Amino acid sequence: MTELDVAGLQRRLAAFAAARDWGQYHTPKNLAVALSVEASELVEIFQWLTPQQSARVMEEPDTAHRVADEVADVLAYLLQFCAVLGVDPLAALAAKIDRNEARFPVPAPPQPENRHSSE
Amino acid sequence: MTELDVAGLQRRLAAFAAARDWGQYHTPKNLAVALSVEASELVEIFQWLTPQQSARVMEEPDTAHRVADEVADVLAYLLQFCAVLGVDPLAALAAKIDRNEARFPVPAPPQPENRHSSE
Amino acid sequence: MTELDVAGLQRRLAAFAAARDWGQYHTPKNLAVALSVEASELVEIFQWLTPQQSARVMEEPDTAHRVADEVADVLAYLLQFCAVLGVDPLAALAAKIDRNEARFPVPAPPQPENRHSSE
Amino acid sequence: MTELDVAGLQRRLAAFAAARDWGQYHTPKNLAVALSVEASELVEIFQWLTPQQSARVMEEPDTAHRVADEVADVLAYLLQFCAVLGVDPLAALAAKIDRNEARFPVPAPPQPENRHSSE
Repeated sequence: MTELDVAGLQRRLAAFAAARDWGQYHTPKNLAVALSVEASELVEIFQWLTPQQSARVMEEPDTAHRVADEVADVLAYLLQFCAVLGVDPLAALAAKIDRNEARFPVPAPPQPENRHSSE
Repeated sequence: MTELDVAGLQRRLAAFAAARDWGQYHTPKNLAVALSVEASELVEIFQWLTPQQSARVMEEPDTAHRVADEVADVLAYLLQFCAVLGVDPLAALAAKIDRNEARFPVPAPPQPENRHSSE
Repeated sequence: MTELDVAGLQRRLAAFAAARDWGQYHTPKNLAVALSVEASELVEIFQWLTPQQSARVMEEPDTAHRVADEVADVLAYLLQFCAVLGVDPLAALAAKIDRNEARFPVPAPPQPENRHSSE
Repeated sequence: MTELDVAGLQRRLAAFAAARDWGQYHTPKNLAVALSVEASELVEIFQWLTPQQSARVMEEPDTAHRVADEVADVLAYLLQFCAVLGVDPLAALAAKIDRNEARFPVPAPPQPENRHSSE
């Protein structure tokens, strides 16, 4: 039975690394670097595509699988990085959205013109 | 009240982008590229640190805040990328861990020595 | 008088780092990571642009300066990386082009149609 | 006879791409993205190495070849990016070193103690 929440996946990743004695490699620096390497592997799928082609990558099963696989790798290193440093990624994102809502206010909708506004 | 699960954060991110008419920029290609740019901003914090120094970045409040902020940016683009393409990031990671457990079997523990094995 | 060849720039970069005692940070790993961080800063300029907009970035003086500045940073770390490891970047590229010419043969041009070829 | 200067390599790269009709893919945005993808492939070689191990990568012939190959890829995309946008990479770097010499002045050497300074 697969645990499909963030904390459950972090526990599986930690157990996986511990069983293989990989913890020695998992410094925060190395995990951040590995995250960026995997993000670039995701980008590589798209690098020569037009914006329109990039919207259709899931139509081809091999490419769809490759996309999901790279997403998994990015998330794996992000969650391990967060576990090692004690960062809660969901709370960090919620706080960031809060800040961005203040920083980038929604533009007011255009007002209907009122020709008689001075009356 | 903040929704602190992945689906809830994806809804907030989608509403945020829609309110600002940013959806036009959010092609899968651009979101993957933005993810990798943010991952590099996370790496930048660590680039000149020794492995030992990298383990202590959360001790300094400004750096700790910067780390959490970049984690949020990485996760924001990862979740938006997944929403646009219909990828479930947690399911993708669970499937990847399953595959990796088969691909990288845990080494057998060393056998207890049997002094009398030749008898 | 500025030395405008690769070896001359490598000498200037080495002297610059030595005068500031930065050599201790310049492990091959750190220089490769710094190179990729700078490459991402170059990408950041383009991340939300359409292909067409990306072709016009030099028309705006501030953006043109930013592009040249990031190119310089990428090249600086590439040349320092090569100097530390004894790689000749121009020779490496020439050898790679040679290999690629064999690997990706030029497609034969379409043959002129000959209506009477069977005669 | 191989042209081993930057302009000569840029001519070879342009001819190579033109012969294969790849110019259509070589928008500045795509070339910047390809540059960052190749930079990450260079980083990948180092991602789990200690600083000490990273200094010895050229001792193993396969790894040495891989390093040179990724250096070539990074330089290839950097030079093509510069050619497409009309940036002179060597001049950009020389100008950047000039600016950095002003921005990061060399610390004054420690002064020899003068025991009789008050006399």
